[in-house]
Parts: sequence; C-alpha cells; structure tokens
Amino acid sequence: MDTKPKDKCAVFGIISGDDVFNSIYYGLYAMQHRGQESAGIATYTGRINIHRDMGLVSDVFKNTYFSGNSGIGHVRYSTTGESSSRNAQPLLINYSMGSFAIAHNGNITNTSELKYLLEHRGSIFTTTTDTEIIAQLIAQEHIKTNDFVLGIKNAMEYLEGAYCLTILYGRKVIAVRDPWGLRPLVFGKGETTYAVASESCALDVLDLKLVRDVKPSEILVIDENGIKSVMGKKQKPAHCMFEYVYFSRADSIINERSVYEIRRKLGRNLLHESEVDADLVVPVPDSGITAAVGYSEDSNIPFGEALMKNRYIGRTFIMPEQDDRELGVRLKLNPILSEIKGREIVLIDDSLVRGNTTRRLIKILRKSGVGKIHVRISCPPIRSPCPYGIDMQTTKEFIASKKTVDEIRNIIDADSLVYISLEGLIDAIGIPEEKLCLGCLTGKYPIKEKKQLKLEG
Amino acid sequence: MDTKPKDKCAVFGIISGDDVFNSIYYGLYAMQHRGQESAGIATYTGRINIHRDMGLVSDVFKNTYFSGNSGIGHVRYSTTGESSSRNAQPLLINYSMGSFAIAHNGNITNTSELKYLLEHRGSIFTTTTDTEIIAQLIAQEHIKTNDFVLGIKNAMEYLEGAYCLTILYGRKVIAVRDPWGLRPLVFGKGETTYAVASESCALDVLDLKLVRDVKPSEILVIDENGIKSVMGKKQKPAHCMFEYVYFSRADSIINERSVYEIRRKLGRNLLHESEVDADLVVPVPDSGITAAVGYSEDSNIPFGEALMKNRYIGRTFIMPEQDDRELGVRLKLNPILSEIKGREIVLIDDSLVRGNTTRRLIKILRKSGVGKIHVRISCPPIRSPCPYGIDMQTTKEFIASKKTVDEIRNIIDADSLVYISLEGLIDAIGIPEEKLCLGCLTGKYPIKEKKQLKLEG
Amino acid sequence: MDTKPKDKCAVFGIISGDDVFNSIYYGLYAMQHRGQESAGIATYTGRINIHRDMGLVSDVFKNTYFSGNSGIGHVRYSTTGESSSRNAQPLLINYSMGSFAIAHNGNITNTSELKYLLEHRGSIFTTTTDTEIIAQLIAQEHIKTNDFVLGIKNAMEYLEGAYCLTILYGRKVIAVRDPWGLRPLVFGKGETTYAVASESCALDVLDLKLVRDVKPSEILVIDENGIKSVMGKKQKPAHCMFEYVYFSRADSIINERSVYEIRRKLGRNLLHESEVDADLVVPVPDSGITAAVGYSEDSNIPFGEALMKNRYIGRTFIMPEQDDRELGVRLKLNPILSEIKGREIVLIDDSLVRGNTTRRLIKILRKSGVGKIHVRISCPPIRSPCPYGIDMQTTKEFIASKKTVDEIRNIIDADSLVYISLEGLIDAIGIPEEKLCLGCLTGKYPIKEKKQLKLEG
Amino acid sequence: MDTKPKDKCAVFGIISGDDVFNSIYYGLYAMQHRGQESAGIATYTGRINIHRDMGLVSDVFKNTYFSGNSGIGHVRYSTTGESSSRNAQPLLINYSMGSFAIAHNGNITNTSELKYLLEHRGSIFTTTTDTEIIAQLIAQEHIKTNDFVLGIKNAMEYLEGAYCLTILYGRKVIAVRDPWGLRPLVFGKGETTYAVASESCALDVLDLKLVRDVKPSEILVIDENGIKSVMGKKQKPAHCMFEYVYFSRADSIINERSVYEIRRKLGRNLLHESEVDADLVVPVPDSGITAAVGYSEDSNIPFGEALMKNRYIGRTFIMPEQDDRELGVRLKLNPILSEIKGREIVLIDDSLVRGNTTRRLIKILRKSGVGKIHVRISCPPIRSPCPYGIDMQTTKEFIASKKTVDEIRNIIDADSLVYISLEGLIDAIGIPEEKLCLGCLTGKYPIKEKKQLKLEG
Repeated sequence: MDTKPKDKCAVFGIISGDDVFNSIYYGLYAMQHRGQESAGIATYTGRINIHRDMGLVSDVFKNTYFSGNSGIGHVRYSTTGESSSRNAQPLLINYSMGSFAIAHNGNITNTSELKYLLEHRGSIFTTTTDTEIIAQLIAQEHIKTNDFVLGIKNAMEYLEGAYCLTILYGRKVIAVRDPWGLRPLVFGKGETTYAVASESCALDVLDLKLVRDVKPSEILVIDENGIKSVMGKKQKPAHCMFEYVYFSRADSIINERSVYEIRRKLGRNLLHESEVDADLVVPVPDSGITAAVGYSEDSNIPFGEALMKNRYIGRTFIMPEQDDRELGVRLKLNPILSEIKGREIVLIDDSLVRGNTTRRLIKILRKSGVGKIHVRISCPPIRSPCPYGIDMQTTKEFIASKKTVDEIRNIIDADSLVYISLEGLIDAIGIPEEKLCLGCLTGKYPIKEKKQLKLEG
Repeated sequence: MDTKPKDKCAVFGIISGDDVFNSIYYGLYAMQHRGQESAGIATYTGRINIHRDMGLVSDVFKNTYFSGNSGIGHVRYSTTGESSSRNAQPLLINYSMGSFAIAHNGNITNTSELKYLLEHRGSIFTTTTDTEIIAQLIAQEHIKTNDFVLGIKNAMEYLEGAYCLTILYGRKVIAVRDPWGLRPLVFGKGETTYAVASESCALDVLDLKLVRDVKPSEILVIDENGIKSVMGKKQKPAHCMFEYVYFSRADSIINERSVYEIRRKLGRNLLHESEVDADLVVPVPDSGITAAVGYSEDSNIPFGEALMKNRYIGRTFIMPEQDDRELGVRLKLNPILSEIKGREIVLIDDSLVRGNTTRRLIKILRKSGVGKIHVRISCPPIRSPCPYGIDMQTTKEFIASKKTVDEIRNIIDADSLVYISLEGLIDAIGIPEEKLCLGCLTGKYPIKEKKQLKLEG
Repeated sequence: MDTKPKDKCAVFGIISGDDVFNSIYYGLYAMQHRGQESAGIATYTGRINIHRDMGLVSDVFKNTYFSGNSGIGHVRYSTTGESSSRNAQPLLINYSMGSFAIAHNGNITNTSELKYLLEHRGSIFTTTTDTEIIAQLIAQEHIKTNDFVLGIKNAMEYLEGAYCLTILYGRKVIAVRDPWGLRPLVFGKGETTYAVASESCALDVLDLKLVRDVKPSEILVIDENGIKSVMGKKQKPAHCMFEYVYFSRADSIINERSVYEIRRKLGRNLLHESEVDADLVVPVPDSGITAAVGYSEDSNIPFGEALMKNRYIGRTFIMPEQDDRELGVRLKLNPILSEIKGREIVLIDDSLVRGNTTRRLIKILRKSGVGKIHVRISCPPIRSPCPYGIDMQTTKEFIASKKTVDEIRNIIDADSLVYISLEGLIDAIGIPEEKLCLGCLTGKYPIKEKKQLKLEG
Repeated sequence: MDTKPKDKCAVFGIISGDDVFNSIYYGLYAMQHRGQESAGIATYTGRINIHRDMGLVSDVFKNTYFSGNSGIGHVRYSTTGESSSRNAQPLLINYSMGSFAIAHNGNITNTSELKYLLEHRGSIFTTTTDTEIIAQLIAQEHIKTNDFVLGIKNAMEYLEGAYCLTILYGRKVIAVRDPWGLRPLVFGKGETTYAVASESCALDVLDLKLVRDVKPSEILVIDENGIKSVMGKKQKPAHCMFEYVYFSRADSIINERSVYEIRRKLGRNLLHESEVDADLVVPVPDSGITAAVGYSEDSNIPFGEALMKNRYIGRTFIMPEQDDRELGVRLKLNPILSEIKGREIVLIDDSLVRGNTTRRLIKILRKSGVGKIHVRISCPPIRSPCPYGIDMQTTKEFIASKKTVDEIRNIIDADSLVYISLEGLIDAIGIPEEKLCLGCLTGKYPIKEKKQLKLEG
C-alpha cells in the first residue's frame, strides 16, 4: 500500500467472425489496472475507425461504437510526453504505403538517438510519444523494403527497451514483443476468434483459451485464416520481475507462470527467510493479500484481514492537507481493533518504495494498541530506476537507495523488517536469474550495448 | 457476490472547536458504502448552510465549502420516493418556531397513516420522502409543546419503523435512534469534538474515540458543552442482523460488537455445522472474505483468494446483453485456474438472495475444471422482505422463499449447499435472539401493534 | 445595453390530443429570454410526471421525455430563495385532497405576513420560494372548501403582488393571473390544442392562434372539452410598462398590444420630444433596435447598425479584470469606424439603469473619432425598485435616483441626453396611465393596502 | 438565414511586453463566428506551452492559463480530416532544427500531390489535416536551407490554395498569407504590442490600431523589436468575395475595405437593380440586416425588423422531426404580425444556397397574412463549390446550379426574386473583378496551373 510505481499501458488486438468492438472494450476493461489515464480503440472496415480520449474505458466509450471484425485497443497510465488527449493511443499513421494504427506498452530507451536519426532523415514529429518514433521507423522501413512485416522486423533492429505492440494493418492484427520480453504479451483463441493481450485476464473475460505467450522477438501476424510467426533478431530474455510482484493481476498467467502462485510462493519463501513468533499475519490490501496467504499457510500463524480498505476513492476526492497525511492513510485503511489490540502482527506488503505510507500506517496501528509489528516485504529493496516503462524514474524516490534495512526499520518504526532475498524472489518466480530483468533491484540492466546509428537522412 | 440488498443511507453529526465541513466530508466518505446515490452537508453559522445533490461525496462537494462549528451530513442509496436531487438530504425545514436541518437513515413503516394524519391536520408535502413526514411531526409537536426536544420525543410516539436521525437545530446537533435500535448509531469524541455516525468507521477516520452506541429510544442533544440524554418511550430492542452479516463495514463496531469478529465467528460456526472434506476455502470477494478466513481457521483446509475481483467498475460501463450474463460475472470475478483446477473447493458467500450470480459463477468455475464445489452461506435463507430500510421489498426476489435448500443447490449446480443455522447466526452475533430483528429470515417482525392515530386536524 | 434588470420566469400550460412534452419544450424555449437559470416540465398520465433542474431548456431536457396529453412548464431567472435545483419549478404538492403541480411567474409582496399566517396555522416549509406559500394557501383553501377552483379563488384573496400561475391538477390545466395583471399571460388554441403562456411568441412557435389575454383576476380552467372562466375579486389593472419597454420579446402581443409597435412608437415619440440634428441613428443592440427604427423613420436621419454585437458570450467566459471594464464592453460591442468617424450620432437605448456600460461605450465611441453623441432613452428614468418580480431591488443601483439628467449626461459624457417623458411612454403603450404599473418610474405602486391577516392556526 | 456555408477557422498571433494569454483568448473570442468546433492557444516561455481541445474558446480555456510574451491561437469550424480533438490547432512540430507551433486558416488544393510528394520523401502523417502537410514542408525546407524564414518561403512555392498562417517559432511570431490573398489577415499594433489576426475585429477588442493587411505572398516576421517583411513569389490577387457578403463580421475591415460599408452598398445596388413598390424592407436576421438598411436607405420604403430571432439556440437542443421543418424555422424566426399583415414586403437575405429555409420562411409569412413577398439576395447565385476553405463542397447542394431564377422563385413561392448582378456585387466591393475570387459564382477559379512536383524522396 506504499506509494506504488505505476505501470504504463496495456495493449489488445483481436480478429473475429463477429464485430470486435465490445470484445476490445471488455478486454481493455479487464486491464484497466494497467492504465486509467486514457483509452482508445481502432477497428477496420475497409478503413480504420478510431476513437481515443482521456479517461477510463467506460467513460471514453460511453457513446461510441463502430463495427469491424478486427481491431486493436490501448489503455495508458501516462507516458513520456505531455499528458493530453493528443497522446492517447492507438496512433493512426498515413504514409506512402497506406496507413496503420499502432498501440504500444513499454518504454524505448534509445529515443534520443532514434529521434536524432529520424530527424536527420527529415522526419518531423507531431506528438511527444516514443510510439510515434516506433511508427516512423516502421513506416520508413516499410517504404525501403516494400514489405510491411519485414519493415517491422528491420525497425526492431533499431529499437532498444521495452515494447509490446499491437498494430492494425488492413484487416490484419500484428502483435510484436521486444527481444527481451520485458513486458508480458499473450495470445489466445476461441472458436472463431484470435486475440492478443498484455495480460491473460483479458482473454479470460472473453472466455478465450490462453494458447501461449507471444515470444520475445516475435512478430505474430494474425488474419482470419490464423497466425503466422516471424522472428526478429533474438536477445537473451529479461522478463520484468515486478510484473509478478505487483503490476499484473493475480489471475493472469505470464510467461507460463501463474502470478497468483508466484505471489503465494513469495509469501512462503519470505516466511522461511524471516520466521518470527507472532499472533496474526496481516496483509496490506489489496496487493499484499496473496503473499500473506502464503506466509500464513506454511507457518502456524493465522491469516487475518485486519486492515479494511475503503473502496470508494473518487477522482475528485478532496485529500487532507499536507500536515495531516495520517488522515490520508486512515481514509484508505482502517485497522480492526479487536484483531490487533495487544497482539503481535506480521504485516505483509509487496513492496516498499518511499516508505511514507508504511510509516504512517504503523503509527496508526501503534495508536490502536497493537503489540509488536514485524514488517515483511515480498520484494527485495528497490534501489534503481526502471527505464523500461515503469514509473520509477529517479533513485531519489527509493528509500532503499540510501538507507540500510535497519535505518528503514527505524524510520517506519517497525519492530522488525525483512525483505525477501533476491534468491527467494527468483526461486518463487521459477525463471532462471539470467532470464529476468532485476535492474531496479541490482542496478544491472539487461540492455547494454547500443547499436551505432548511421545518419543517412 | 450474489445480487445484494442495498442499504439505505448513513447519517453523521458533529460539533467541534474548528470548522467541521471537512470532517463531515471525510466521515460521509468513510460511510459511502451505505449510499452512493446522493450526498448532503449542512452546517450552522448563525444560519444554516446547506448543499446536497445526486452523486458520490467526492463529486457533490468538489467545489463546495462552508464554515461552521457544527453540522450534519447524509449519504443515501435510494429511498421511498422519486430518485432525484429534490430528495437528497439533509432536508431544511422552516416553520413558525424557526428552522432545522434533518438527515434520516431507516424506513418508517406507518407512513400512510402518518401522511393521512398530517394531511388531515392540513399539512402539504413537497417531497415524497418519509423524512418530510418525520420533520412535519417534529415541527408540529415543537409548536404544540414549545420545546424542541420534547417535540422530538412526542413525535417519536407516532413513528414506527427504523430511524436514526441527525438534526441540526441552531448550534446544537441532536441524534435520535428509534426505540428498536434497528439501525446502528454511535457516539464518539475527541479533544474538542463530539460526533455521531451510523458506523464507527466514520469516527475512526477522524481519529475520534468511540464512546458508546446511541441507545434505542435515546435523544442525544450535543452542544459545545457536552451531551444531554433524553430517553423516549422504550421498546424491546431489535437490532438488524444483516448489518453484521453484510451491510456494515467489517471495521465497524455496532452495539458494542465488532462486525469483523462476528463475521469470522460466522465462518467458524458454519464450518462446524457443515464440515466437508475439501482442498481450498474460497471466498466470494469482497464480502465473503472474513467468513472464509474463519471457516479455514478452524478447519485444516487452507484459505485461498482464488477469485479475483476487478476494482474498476465505472458508472457508465456498458454491460453485456441479457443473453450473456456469464460475461457480466466474468467482468467482475475471474478464477485463478492454478488454484482450483481439479480441486474441491468450499465457496463462501455471505448471503444468497436471488441466486443468479452464484449460478453463473459456478458455471464459470466448472468450465475452469474445478473439482467439487461446496457452497457455504454465512447467513440463513432470506425469505421475507425488510420493511426497515433495506432494499428487499418483495418475497418474489428471494430464491429461498419458494425453493428448498436442495432445489436451490440444484439450480445453482453446487455439489453441496449449506446455510448457517439461525442458532449459529445468533451465537456468532452474541446478542440474545429476542434482541435481534430476524424478520427477513423468520417472517416475524419486531414491531407489531400500531398506535391508533387520532385525527384532529 | 446598460446592465439590465432581469425578469423572473415564464410559465406555460397546454392540453392537446397528442403528447404535449415537445410542445412545452418548444414553448419554454421560445421564452428562454425570461429565465435561463432553471427549467421544468410536468405532464399528467394518471399520475404527475415531473423533471426540473438548473440550466437552459435544451440542457435540462436533453435526455428526458414523458408522455401525457396535458402539462405545464416553467423557466426561471432567479427568484427569492437559494439559487438551487431544489427551487426549480414546477413544484409538486401532495396533501389530503390529492396532488398538483404549480409554476409561478411574478413576486408576492406580502410573503412575510403569509408565511407568518401559514406557520401559525402549522405549516412547515421545505423550500424558500413564494411559490410554496401560494401552494400551501391553495391546498389549505381546497381542504376548507372541498373545491379546487374555489380554493384557488379564496387563496387569491390573501395574495398581494404579481403572479401568473399554471397549475396541473389531474388532467386539467388551470391558468391564474393576479387581479392587477402585472405580468402577461395569454391564451391560444389550435385544432385540438389549448395553451397558455407568459408570452404569445410561445404560441406562435407552435402555430397556435392567440385568442386573448388571461384577464386580471381570472382563473381559466382548461380541459379537453374547452375552457371555463372563473373570476376572482377584481382590482384596478396595473400592467407592467417594462414588459413593453424591455422584457418581452418584440414579436409578442401583450394586453392586445404589439410590443414591436409600441417600441417603434417609443422611438417616434422620443424623436418628437428631443429632435436633434445628426448624421445617424445608432441603436444599442439588440434591445434598442426597434426604437431606433422608429426614431429614424419619422426623422430625416438614416438608421445605421453601427454597433456590432458578438453573439458568442459563453457561460464560462473569463471576463476582464475590474480595471478593464472597457474591454468588457468591447468584447460585446464594436463600433463600425467608417459609419461613425466624424459624424454626429443619436444613440438609442431602451433604458439606463446604472449607467456604467453606457459611460464605457461612449468612451469607446469617442476614441473611434465619433462626432457628437446624443443619447436618447426610450424609457423615463428608473428611480424606484420593483417589488413585482423584476430584479431591481434597491434604489442604490439606479443612477437616476440621485442624479439629475444633466449630471447623468455629464457622468456618461454624452453631448446631450434625453429620456422619453412619462407622457410619451404612456402614449406609445396606448393604455391609460391608471391601468399601468409605473412604480419604478414614479415610486407610486398599484398595491396599497394590505388585507389584515387573521391568525387562526 | 438560409442554410449557410460555414467558414473554416481564424488565426491569431501576438507579441507584447505583457503576458499575451488573455489577449489571445479575447482575440479568438472576437472571431468565434469563424469557428466553434475547437480552439487552441500556444505561448512561448523558453518552451512552447500549448492547449487545444474541442469546444468554444470559453469552454476550452476555462481552467487553463500560461504565461508568455508571444503566442498564437486558432479557432476551427471543421476541416478536412476527422472531427476530433486530435485535429485541434495549433499543431506542435518537433524536428531536427527545433520546434514550432502553427495555426492555419484556409484550404490547400493540391494536398494529394503534396502528400504523395512528402510520403515519397518518407514522411509519415499522424493527423489528417493539410496543416500537417504545410508543417512538414516548412520543416523539410528549413532543414534544406538552414534558415526558417527561407524555409517558409520555399515551402510556399509548393502550396496551392488558401492559407493564412500564424507560426510561433521561438519568441518570434510569423504571419503568412497565400499569394492570392484569398482569406483575410491583418496586422495591428498598440504601445508595446504587435498582433496579426484573421479579422480586424480581433484587434479592435484589444484596442489595437489596424495598421494594414498582411499582403498576399507576404511573410511577416514579428519580434519584440518590430516587424520584418519577406515577400514570396507573387500571384495575381484573388480576394474571396464571400468574406464581404457573409463570413466576416460587419465591423471588420478587410483588404482596406469596411465590410459594413460594402454590405450597405450591396443593398443599395440591389435596390437600383430591382426596384419594386412595397411597404416594408425586412431583413432576414442577423446577416441580412446591413444590406436591408442600404436597400431601404435609397428607396422610400421603410426598414422594419419584422422577423424576430431567438438568441438561445443551444447545442443540445432537440430539433423537431423531419416532417416539421417549418417548426424548425419558427423556433429561430418569428414574424411581427402587425408589421407584415396585408403589406407587401421586400425580404432581404445575403445568400440563398439550398433554398429550403427560405421556402419554409415564406410559407410562415404567407400564413401570417403578408401581402406580396419580393425576395432580394445581396449575392449572385452560388453555383460552384469552393475549394479554398469554405464548406460548400459539391454542386448538388446549390439550388442555383440546376434551376433558373424563375424556377427558384417558384420553388420558394416568392412573388418576385432578384439576385444582385455580378457587376453590382463587384461595384459594391470596390475591388477590380480580376483581383477577386468569384469562383463559386462563375466556376472560374484563380489558381489554374499546378506546379509539377518532382519526386526526389
């Protein structure tokens, strides 16, 4: 419940025997947790129909509908560039070879080089998103090669960073995942339907069967006859560990692993690394619940839902002044007095970024007469920024980047504080360390060398 | 998660050394679960300042503020009468003796008699709420007796049904609870603050100490010097059991009992009445969670959060057509496949009103390859309507009013179905049966005889 | 174009062979100039259907429709009482004899006495409008007499001031005009339709034929079989002169006189009282145009539309700061340089209340290099407040209440200033002086003595 | 009042010693008649600040303000391309040489060639406006020449059609007018302020002095030190006659000619070409008023404002069904019965495009008992579409393209119908025929030959 990093976007794509608008709408809705700032849908009916605006899916599309058997969609939290309806996606591109719509989840790390390259080839930009950079590259390579898919493949050679794309090109839907597989992208099907989505929960809502992940480096071309796979140049995979720890919905399956199972295992591993004698395992809702279940399960300490969450936070809610942030926490969370009074608790949270909220929460718990408070965090200390699409930009915001664990324990006023170990994290995820991106924990990032850009423009 | 009865309103009142507007705002916000249709605040600054409109607290008050050291507030789900801003509360009354603002939670059962009585005394009504009836009675009795509090006391002699009132009369805040104590109303204080609220969670958010319940029949008069208690004619208490089972927030304490503890005990009692061999205890979120924790605790079956809830249901969300209500359930709840595949589960819900949602949910679970499904309900079968302010008006809507438990089990397609017994419910609540209102379960209502109304107008 | 007094409300009523909702909508729309703050419609279909809210007709009813062959409507500028949706009309009344909806244009002058009377009979009020007072009186007299129309007739005995009412009582529409006939109310019919409206332009829009005025003191009861007229106690008529001078639409016919013809005659009379040698007659648009046409017509000075009005003033327009009110005028009006440069003009306006706008306008005209400016006002100096429903409440706001004409000429910096004489005004209107209300000009009001109210409650 | 062609956009630019935001806001507001669909403002404060959205100026900027001593603005009616917030202007461009904001009024006629050219140079487009085409050309030519102003000059060599541009480049504001001078663009100054605007009324509102037109082919570079003029390749001027007849505000001065004076002269010329014996000259408000004044002036027939206009048309107004379009006209215009009954009238309108509204209006007038109706139109018959930015796209919509004047007279049921002659029009405007664009009247367009585009990309 600590101030959480915010994810940036989800993408969706679908081809069906029926109109796809509602399916895109429901699919985006299932992934609304990945972006509440803007939403957009494009479908194809001989031409590309498109609508995108600021707001939740339900607000943006309350009066809009278009037909079409294939289409893509996008929700965005925020992104590089000005926060305005102009940057809502999908982006619609017109150029000498025709037109396409494109939606992007991720963050490109070599944008300044690419922008420089493209600008020196003569490109001009009308948005400030890296999506426009990707689109310009694809369009240029399409022009060069006269083959759209080859154009995408060539464009991928320039791109560094995280990108899951859905592209609507004529009737086709094309899904692209970066060579590192940083962000999730899955493929599913139904009787007459093929779909791709950032998370499998968007397939579940449409009663589609999850078939497999879109592979790192893969360009998956979908039309009414089925799928065709083209592989770009490979890199060593580097799946983002934070998708498992916090971002993705627990009911999603990413890289063939159940997020829920991983979170429960995180709780179990955390227990074994930091067993303590206590009366109750208390999760910080909602995101700490699954790890707390796992923690309790292997111990003899019962699980208790001793912090109640208010579910009605509205957009226009008037928050308390700076000098009463404790009230800000109480407005969201309220302890069950009878559960915690005089009892030692294990407080489980999934991460601890700045530490302010946890500090205030513990103050409230102490006022309530709790016994000892043992804080357990199901993610190792976050110390470095994420360049791949998660809203943690500077080390200044990480309490763990300058403080020791004991200093943090002191700041938040816990009786004990244990973070899960890197080994415990990796073991729970069940993917070898070399195939994970652990950059925000270790400072070691998977994308090292940069392709030397030739200026040819 | 079955289609739930909806509660009707919360009231709030406060006197403080400081401006009270924000405290009312936060207090109402903490009770937003009791009413999302309209909100209103009145304060006193020599005159009564008032604003009320349709919408959530955060929407209604995004551009409004008034000063004042005393005030009342109200949120409403719906009420008798047209659903319009005209019926938003508090209601402001002007009459020969001055003016007051009044907010009401509950439902009066003898409104037609009272309306008849008042109309024959010459009253005319400009709203269709029973709040206006209460207000007219109070005003008339005030005129007769020349004493406002005595006027309230006399008015109470006429009123049958559930009513918790907060009244702003000059600088004073007056809290009134019906003689049966059907709905909750609590009193709390801080250093320079006195407050009353429908639920104690509204006191917690303001860091006020819960002192006690407003007693059944009590008129609690609060001014800056403290409280004065006047008792109206007593009746045998009849506390609503459904406040414990479903309505109130789990972190509230009502009639000196922790809602959370009662719900956990309901789970434990349910276990002992219906033990079954299974692999996982699965709550229907959010309301089934606490009972599921209790059920798991005393058994050797682990608790699992195997149904994930989407938290982003918007007001303007386009729901699927009639013929795909299963999608409607999937949009709200998604099972964790890895948790339930091939496993026997105990599915815990807090009530089962119409049964449609549970039927669809079980269909989805069966498609997911679950093993057996044992449904356990932490409330006995609801068979009769509630005349006291809960939105269950006709027996037609209760599946249990015409079907046996086994027929219901068959309809929802569960492998077994057990409701908690009346005894198990009463034991968990810990209040003697004769002091509870169990009308919706037994058809026996606490308010029997009606005062014969004299027409004098 | 000087800061104008604002009128307060229009009423409408209709019975037809078809649904009347759209006709009420269009009728109110035609009278939108009489009130832009709120709008409401009520129709009868066995029960009364009602919707009313803040905003223009087109906003309030963009998503609302109900059937019904009879109904009433209302637009309001503002009124006594808080400016909120709660005070939007029609008002819906329930009492022992049934229910009715009521809409009111005008202002009652003895409200405090009536409120005192009614409160001492035991009434309580839930709005702060005088409409509720009228409604309570009607309901009480209905109860006493057991005859609705007689109840209205008796209630009128208590009422002093201006009131045009439309009442929906069962299927019937009842129109009432105060004994002084202060505000306009007309009756019209079509093939299967009877309608009443504050102004005849609302009949025109529906292609209905204007039959006659509702007479002062008249209660006109309309049902599907036709009309029945009941006369209340008569008073000497006192038609508001300002309806002719400014308020009503020029295309309306009031008290059998064309507003347009009167305004043109005002211009002609003004010419004859104040002839001057000039090059151009320039109206202050829009309200000065007709008088300017009349002024030019009888003179040899051509009419010129030399001030252009911007028609796009929006509700949320950010007006210039206090220190640049001249810009405020330029945003609304812009002179045609080529028309006025070096020329003497006669500037025609229909009234001059505070004088600020005229002063600023003349400053702008002088900067444009105009020659002499002769201001001619087609209404005598306004010196006294209007108690009968026009928003001119205190003498402080009238420049003419403390200044001589020559002082005013000096303040506004005109080369000459002439107001039409009282005689010229009366002659143009063509109604004998004793049948006009000239209170705001003379300080002599038509309603002198007050009925002594008996307290009987 | 006939269904009018709609203009497309206004541009504004300003540099001042003070913040310019409010000046741009007021300037755009004064030109709101040229575009109500979207509005945008950009200012410079070391970086370009920009906001643009759908809606009126007052709505788009109700909560927005930025500082900056130079800036540009834009209002749009509609344009080529999708009608969405994405196409709102100014457009913000980033490229290798930096960035600029650009606003455009007009329409480019060789867009497909230019798009083909640019796409084959490798450009991709993210909007569907011709403004993006202009911007891409300027950016490319800037890159080639390394000189921004020279870049604009070179870009102009490619552009055909109508374009008035304001460009914000660093602190500089640059105004550009196409070589034909099709659309208006004026330059004005104050003490510390320089401004350019589509119409001089936007200068008036800010109390700036109109200095001169921006000349056809001129690039006017403005910074805090004053102006610098660069001339592009010249063409024979071709000023749009419809700006004088209908589009521009009557208080504007365009190409050194007063729109008001021209309209009055049109009325006078029309009289002399079509004198008739009648009782009253009646304008169709608002746009027919000035010509009617002129027509009356030279005749002995008085001017009468005998059609009243309702000023409250709202955006969400529910218009009558197809089968009652007569009501649609009555909702906007209402005849003054007393003025027209039994009298012969000359009905003056400024143009007659489709004829439907005029036909319905005459039907209403006939019902009102008017005598003969002589329709006089102050613009010759419109028979051809406008390619230069006015919303008259196909000949199908022009009644005059297939019907003779007598057939039209018959269709609209006038007693006589006379259009002003081409000679009368040209004489009134006072600009030689060869310097006017009369394309929509004659089918002869000023821009004949197209530059052969070299593909070099």
